Amino acid sequence: MNDVTMNLCADHLIRQALSEDITSEDITTNAVMREAKRGEVELICKQDGIVAGLPVFERVFILLDEMTEVEFYCQDGDEVRSGQRMATVRGDIRVLLSGERTALNYLQRMSGIATYTHSVAALLNGTKTRLLDTRKTTPNMRVFEKYAVRVGGGSNHRYNLSDGVLLKDNHIGAAGGVAAAVRMAKEYAPFVRKIEIETENLDMVREAVEAGADIIMLDNMSKEDMTEAVRIIGGRAETECSGNVTVENAADLAATGVDYISCGALTHSAPILDISLKNLHAV
Amino acid sequence: MNDVTMNLCADHLIRQALSEDITSEDITTNAVMREAKRGEVELICKQDGIVAGLPVFERVFILLDEMTEVEFYCQDGDEVRSGQRMATVRGDIRVLLSGERTALNYLQRMSGIATYTHSVAALLNGTKTRLLDTRKTTPNMRVFEKYAVRVGGGSNHRYNLSDGVLLKDNHIGAAGGVAAAVRMAKEYAPFVRKIEIETENLDMVREAVEAGADIIMLDNMSKEDMTEAVRIIGGRAETECSGNVTVENAADLAATGVDYISCGALTHSAPILDISLKNLHAV
Amino acid sequence: MNDVTMNLCADHLIRQALSEDITSEDITTNAVMREAKRGEVELICKQDGIVAGLPVFERVFILLDEMTEVEFYCQDGDEVRSGQRMATVRGDIRVLLSGERTALNYLQRMSGIATYTHSVAALLNGTKTRLLDTRKTTPNMRVFEKYAVRVGGGSNHRYNLSDGVLLKDNHIGAAGGVAAAVRMAKEYAPFVRKIEIETENLDMVREAVEAGADIIMLDNMSKEDMTEAVRIIGGRAETECSGNVTVENAADLAATGVDYISCGALTHSAPILDISLKNLHAV
Amino acid sequence: MNDVTMNLCADHLIRQALSEDITSEDITTNAVMREAKRGEVELICKQDGIVAGLPVFERVFILLDEMTEVEFYCQDGDEVRSGQRMATVRGDIRVLLSGERTALNYLQRMSGIATYTHSVAALLNGTKTRLLDTRKTTPNMRVFEKYAVRVGGGSNHRYNLSDGVLLKDNHIGAAGGVAAAVRMAKEYAPFVRKIEIETENLDMVREAVEAGADIIMLDNMSKEDMTEAVRIIGGRAETECSGNVTVENAADLAATGVDYISCGALTHSAPILDISLKNLHAV
Amino acid sequence: MNDVTMNLCADHLIRQALSEDITSEDITTNAVMREAKRGEVELICKQDGIVAGLPVFERVFILLDEMTEVEFYCQDGDEVRSGQRMATVRGDIRVLLSGERTALNYLQRMSGIATYTHSVAALLNGTKTRLLDTRKTTPNMRVFEKYAVRVGGGSNHRYNLSDGVLLKDNHIGAAGGVAAAVRMAKEYAPFVRKIEIETENLDMVREAVEAGADIIMLDNMSKEDMTEAVRIIGGRAETECSGNVTVENAADLAATGVDYISCGALTHSAPILDISLKNLHAV
Amino acid sequence: MNDVTMNLCADHLIRQALSEDITSEDITTNAVMREAKRGEVELICKQDGIVAGLPVFERVFILLDEMTEVEFYCQDGDEVRSGQRMATVRGDIRVLLSGERTALNYLQRMSGIATYTHSVAALLNGTKTRLLDTRKTTPNMRVFEKYAVRVGGGSNHRYNLSDGVLLKDNHIGAAGGVAAAVRMAKEYAPFVRKIEIETENLDMVREAVEAGADIIMLDNMSKEDMTEAVRIIGGRAETECSGNVTVENAADLAATGVDYISCGALTHSAPILDISLKNLHAV
Repeated sequence: MNDVTMNLCADHLIRQALSEDITSEDITTNAVMREAKRGEVELICKQDGIVAGLPVFERVFILLDEMTEVEFYCQDGDEVRSGQRMATVRGDIRVLLSGERTALNYLQRMSGIATYTHSVAALLNGTKTRLLDTRKTTPNMRVFEKYAVRVGGGSNHRYNLSDGVLLKDNHIGAAGGVAAAVRMAKEYAPFVRKIEIETENLDMVREAVEAGADIIMLDNMSKEDMTEAVRIIGGRAETECSGNVTVENAADLAATGVDYISCGALTHSAPILDISLKNLHAV
Repeated sequence: MNDVTMNLCADHLIRQALSEDITSEDITTNAVMREAKRGEVELICKQDGIVAGLPVFERVFILLDEMTEVEFYCQDGDEVRSGQRMATVRGDIRVLLSGERTALNYLQRMSGIATYTHSVAALLNGTKTRLLDTRKTTPNMRVFEKYAVRVGGGSNHRYNLSDGVLLKDNHIGAAGGVAAAVRMAKEYAPFVRKIEIETENLDMVREAVEAGADIIMLDNMSKEDMTEAVRIIGGRAETECSGNVTVENAADLAATGVDYISCGALTHSAPILDISLKNLHAV
Repeated sequence: MNDVTMNLCADHLIRQALSEDITSEDITTNAVMREAKRGEVELICKQDGIVAGLPVFERVFILLDEMTEVEFYCQDGDEVRSGQRMATVRGDIRVLLSGERTALNYLQRMSGIATYTHSVAALLNGTKTRLLDTRKTTPNMRVFEKYAVRVGGGSNHRYNLSDGVLLKDNHIGAAGGVAAAVRMAKEYAPFVRKIEIETENLDMVREAVEAGADIIMLDNMSKEDMTEAVRIIGGRAETECSGNVTVENAADLAATGVDYISCGALTHSAPILDISLKNLHAV
Repeated sequence: MNDVTMNLCADHLIRQALSEDITSEDITTNAVMREAKRGEVELICKQDGIVAGLPVFERVFILLDEMTEVEFYCQDGDEVRSGQRMATVRGDIRVLLSGERTALNYLQRMSGIATYTHSVAALLNGTKTRLLDTRKTTPNMRVFEKYAVRVGGGSNHRYNLSDGVLLKDNHIGAAGGVAAAVRMAKEYAPFVRKIEIETENLDMVREAVEAGADIIMLDNMSKEDMTEAVRIIGGRAETECSGNVTVENAADLAATGVDYISCGALTHSAPILDISLKNLHAV
Repeated sequence: MNDVTMNLCADHLIRQALSEDITSEDITTNAVMREAKRGEVELICKQDGIVAGLPVFERVFILLDEMTEVEFYCQDGDEVRSGQRMATVRGDIRVLLSGERTALNYLQRMSGIATYTHSVAALLNGTKTRLLDTRKTTPNMRVFEKYAVRVGGGSNHRYNLSDGVLLKDNHIGAAGGVAAAVRMAKEYAPFVRKIEIETENLDMVREAVEAGADIIMLDNMSKEDMTEAVRIIGGRAETECSGNVTVENAADLAATGVDYISCGALTHSAPILDISLKNLHAV
Repeated sequence: MNDVTMNLCADHLIRQALSEDITSEDITTNAVMREAKRGEVELICKQDGIVAGLPVFERVFILLDEMTEVEFYCQDGDEVRSGQRMATVRGDIRVLLSGERTALNYLQRMSGIATYTHSVAALLNGTKTRLLDTRKTTPNMRVFEKYAVRVGGGSNHRYNLSDGVLLKDNHIGAAGGVAAAVRMAKEYAPFVRKIEIETENLDMVREAVEAGADIIMLDNMSKEDMTEAVRIIGGRAETECSGNVTVENAADLAATGVDYISCGALTHSAPILDISLKNLHAV
């Protein structure tokens, strides 16, 4: 996550998260530590996985106190192992204590998503099919979660309703058919947008490809129909299959030849990766 | 979640989540639906569980368009079953389409937490031990996630660093010992706060109870030590065990006699409950 | 501009504009009108043109006082003529006075852009070439100005740096060449994005089309080179010419066969359309 | 524009403008430049005019990355010529690319206003009449546009409805007459405000000067009436003529002896001054 | 305080004050009242004084729940007596309980200021000298406190640093003298501003009046000097004396003939007026 | 007030207060000082008292310009005397002038509260009874005012409605009695909250102590009843008396044996402590 993104799109959310955790003051810390005292603490991995969110972890402390320093021993995308020391954080001990929870809440969740994405993407290794995320992200966490998907080896679908066109059944109905929907979208949407449309059967697939859709989503089709759909499309549009990828069905789904498989669970159901701050001591 | 809480503590987050999903406009919907058209859509459960977040789900649509109406057939805390119709939403079809994802993102996550909490709390049924959440919540989701824990049958630990005192090893070290830490906290903290302190062995437990701590956390102790600690404390303070409750150890943990068991996984690793909007049609 | 866009993407800007004009109170109005008094005022066009921004004009008054009513006699996109009565606004006279300037500032500027866009687009009538806007908009006015361009008959280029890829010379240099730049963008950008690349000569055009660019911008080329570029591309990518369209060169530019011509002046240099509120009186 | 003004009254608008242009990330730049790389770029004038907004231009880059450095070769108010190098910007190339458009959007518009103001003010050279701006500014641009007017040689009328009293026909009607309106304003308004009143004929002028108005606006009067009005007032109040100053009528308007002429076009219809960033290269 | 002022300049502060008092929920009320229940409560005066802030009091409840209704039996500016019933508030009892403290905090402070201002202004009754407030207001309370001063019979000095010119010794020093300071201010400040200058002796007074200052502040002068200053000025500028008005010196100060006396204590040291909500009961 | 509290809970309020005082620019300073010029000014006490708010005073200037330096000769909690030099502020003279009023408004009010609190607390010296503040704070000033109470030697009651339970008569009524109210609160409130309940007679006191209330407020009881209540409670709960402490009744109230006396006047009616900036000069 580069500095411009952090500055414009993440900082206000991080600050808000800190304010959620400190509405008047950190009373415990303030009760026992009246003066600044320099210390350091280690970031220790407690579970194997893929790390994501180190710049966000660091940013939490910087936003609390710009004098805080974080020395990293790994970077986003690295495989980390239980017991591994990932970083050392140095600064006012009060800042280390007050920021700990928020920093870990971001890092653990982002690393959980990267780890889970990595494991699902691995099921598609050796195929040309790529793994996509969805808009099923946690509210006010999208910029962090979509980044974590990428770190984990997935690709991003549209960011939100404003930057991608996806014509679903209701849109098609309102437009009066597949061809009309694609035409209306091409006329209305900024010209840099690809037009994606959801199809439920081979007739709709044929109509969509005729209409010039850029991406055709194959929704709830049998493997046979998906294979046939990919054949019909013949490279004239990209294809997306929206479904649950599992250890069992991954090879089959990829074998249909679809370009992309999207998976909501990457962001909505990944458990965290356990990481903690240990050995805080004065320096 | 009552209206005052929604208004003051949730609305700005919901609005921000909607803005995350619509940064300029919903281009797909706007491309094919130029005029308002009244419709309705059904909220369907696709997995068994405990529902939480219906008022938030409704609020998403109201904030987009106050003319939207939601008719509920269940309420927060209810057990719902796959296939069950939970609600009907009526309003401008464009609003239903634009708000769908954000509304479901809240509802699914909150219901996921309530469902998971319910299943963990069930392990403690028949004991006097109660289940607590932690501050390991998703950033900018605390007000929703802590509520969902309560709906699922858990109790809330402190809300944040400003409204609860929890003296950990570093605080104790800074204060110069258990007794000093408790004394300093009693002097400093607003007088409505209970003073909680983390202990690692029976000596610390004895010192804490002498010092007048209101709550004593038993951290990483063996079951034998926990049992002895509870005996030593003898009701002079409440007790909390911070650990992983599992099907295997639940009975053992409760048997130590601790008042509370806290569990971070309730909020940081619960998978969502699958719920969707179906059968959108004009009315 | 539909209600969801207004609510999520425009309201806070309009409110901020009102606060810019009233930092403590409207002292003139408050000095002479201590009580609410119902009145009405007419919106009169003082110059021929295309109107855009009527919903924003109305929204200014609604945000000040939701009891204000606006009756429109025309709608966005209509040709209006000097002297034409466009609307009647009814409500508390104090609200009509306090909101007047902000409402007109939006309406006049948006109508100015629509009018100017309409006149430029007219130069391309009868050709297949379409007119595009740019990101050269007034800060904090983009959602209004891009909408006005569309009302005036133009098409929108990307909304901002987050929703469209445009590889310029420096990006190409950093990537190490046209092919590398296109490949890196395809890997990195969300899969719904088209990849646009800026080319300065026919070699770059050939390389871009080989690399699979979705849109090729022809930058500062002679008419002969543009024509040749369009021939080389042969429909395998869309083409954009970024230049000054004038009465003199419009036919020539379109004759090259480019799909789009983009024009910054639509938003950065259109004069306003003169519109005013007249005949305020009590009712 | 000094640092306090920038900090309190401009920074949040600039930041908002940057967020308008980058809602999640600069995908093009991030696709091809994964690491920071130091570079510099030149600010080149492409049209003769008066420059205004250099501190704002600089601030855009500083807000993105405080390590950016801008070396200026001219300052606000200077006449600049096409081809002139105005400044060099040095910093992370990614920051230079991501901030370019927003920085130029401010600088071009502000310089456009200064240039246009300068040309209109020149028409009044050699007279005692001064040129005033109005509240006809672009929403959320007032602090920038009023500053640009001053840089261009104009004077500022009231900033907004809260800091200046201007009694128009409807206020006079509500008060029950000129004398009553002036009296009510004097009683109500903070005592540091001058009281301005709009008059449409010589009777109103006489009444206004009797009532002790500080400024009398002569609205839509003939040159003869204006001259007579100025004579009647005889220095007992300042005078403002609100009208269109053109090359043709400037001398005539000034000859009436009015102290000020206000002109909405300074801010609502000035075309931009063409300025661009060129020759970006690594250093 | 009219609706436009409330909407644009007060609402966000009131909402913020409510959020200061309810950061997650009103736990007491939510613990015992799970459902809405309609009730009413009476606003009772417990001390004699001048009431100010009733619209703000009402607004607190409306912002919490727009269904709340307040019936007033008095209005801002009225003299109220201990024991007097001032209003009845009706609505959801939970809203009445949650909003009570914030509503009273505003009303009591504003009424305290109005009451104190009224008592000080009474010392000047029968003289032509008027009482002014200052910028010595409570941070983030200025819009409420300046209004309360007016309700209490005082006049407002400038609202803030942006809407009034007051040249103090340091400004005069920087300018190089009284005449230069006045001239620079006349050139720089928007033309609707009066120019006020602080003088410390009769020489400065003479210089200020020569320079055309609109208001001359007499700072720390003896009564004799003030009287002489007023004579020297002879109506060519307004005069302000900045000092402590007391029962003892009021007549003397007014006797000097100054137009205004400003008094910081009106806003910085007025005790509250005791008012409370009583007899809450279901209806 | 430590840096984390300042950063997260105070900075945005201070910045807002500065914006309240400078909505477009400091016109006086900008008129006469076009360039930065380094200077210093002294903070002088003009009244004996207890100082509170020095870090906030400093922060005002730092937020305006981080190059400003403040050298303190005393610290929060110190007794200061009229004439004492408290600090020297060094920086751009324009910043010193523009920030002066806001910085003093905070410091004077906070010191006023500390001074008044100190004098009231002194009445309880030699007793075991401690002095408490209330939620009767100035809107948007709570974080500053509660801190000032502590500096003055008082203790803080709950911060707001979200972090403390106080069951009043209406809550008790809604719950159906004292015992039910306490039970419901214990079930609902986060487990770190103490449960406080208001009692009006000895029967309620007995019921409250039986129900396990943590704190019992004795409301409007005679000294005899309070003494009896304290005896009945016998250390099983803490006790709070909510009333007006005066020189006359302090000894009597403390003699009842209550643990705490709460006093709204500490924050709602303390006059400011007079402090000013003097001797600004260039360096």
